[in-house]
Amino acid sequence: MPSPLRNGDLRSPSALHQHNPFHSTVSQQKLRRLNALILLLRFAAFCFCLAAAIFMASNSSHSSDSPSWSHFPTFRYVLAANSIVAIYSVFEMCAAVWEILKAATLLPEGMQIWFEFSHDQVFAYMLLSAEAAGVGEARRLRGLGSCDASGGFCVQAYISVALGFAGFAFLALSALLSGFRVACFVITGSRFHI
Amino acid sequence: MPSPLRNGDLRSPSALHQHNPFHSTVSQQKLRRLNALILLLRFAAFCFCLAAAIFMASNSSHSSDSPSWSHFPTFRYVLAANSIVAIYSVFEMCAAVWEILKAATLLPEGMQIWFEFSHDQVFAYMLLSAEAAGVGEARRLRGLGSCDASGGFCVQAYISVALGFAGFAFLALSALLSGFRVACFVITGSRFHI
Repeated sequence: MPSPLRNGDLRSPSALHQHNPFHSTVSQQKLRRLNALILLLRFAAFCFCLAAAIFMASNSSHSSDSPSWSHFPTFRYVLAANSIVAIYSVFEMCAAVWEILKAATLLPEGMQIWFEFSHDQVFAYMLLSAEAAGVGEARRLRGLGSCDASGGFCVQAYISVALGFAGFAFLALSALLSGFRVACFVITGSRFHI
Repeated sequence: MPSPLRNGDLRSPSALHQHNPFHSTVSQQKLRRLNALILLLRFAAFCFCLAAAIFMASNSSHSSDSPSWSHFPTFRYVLAANSIVAIYSVFEMCAAVWEILKAATLLPEGMQIWFEFSHDQVFAYMLLSAEAAGVGEARRLRGLGSCDASGGFCVQAYISVALGFAGFAFLALSALLSGFRVACFVITGSRFHI
């Protein structure tokens, strides 16, 4: 369907319309918005997971005999999961920026969207399980009374887990959107027919 | 929408075509298979979650001073999550059987598929977080050496958590499929155009 709509990003949808007068302009514009939204969600997930990983990794330098994250397998898992998600988010943001700049996906289109959806989904589950186990561990430490004795250790662990939950929320949202993109691809054969 | 289609299982999709000569016959057949697959996954999730809940709830009757699931908030959460998913699966199986028998959804179609997808997704996350926390608790009990002293308590807790993970796997798969159905509905306006 021909459309006089412009594409462009969400805030300046001005200049690109002369270049693509074909029927898929509206779909491409929707796809562009969807991609921009996913990029935004990934950026948020990256920020929260990076912050969670930093909070957890720095949770050992209070004194020599205070507890450290590395003494607790659960907290090691929390740190690992947050780090993996942060690194993955950087990679995905690079791929998204590449797609915006070059107007082509980094991998072949089908492979790319399946890759993104499957990794979003699996990493969201991984991150959630890590944070759930981390909450259990932090609650147990508080119950033992070791929180009072060890300065800010428990508080910092709680903050890290809370940041990780926020990262999970954004990752789960981007998994929903990339899942929708996969379904588009499966049903219509193209991401463009949204 | 009224449909002259008969229901039937996955193995005899043959006799349906005379009754519906329209172009959506193949789509309806695909939808039928998808629904049957989701029903199967729900049944599996129900079995595993019910077994997990029973294993956890019966994990206190060894002797009067042995530990009980009710002493551990994490195990209470595991029991609650598994019970909720089992009850939800029963409800969803009833809705699916109703749909097969009456050739119409229990709720309005759009509401029904959004309801199913959102609940699948949320309950899958809930179940995963419960099992992850349960694993942490069971590992901690084993680390404390209380497993040796308390008969089969730890073993039974492990079995319950493992069964819950299996239930989660089936629930996550059915969330994927119902998510695909939602995307179908959003993109094409009907579940039938798969």
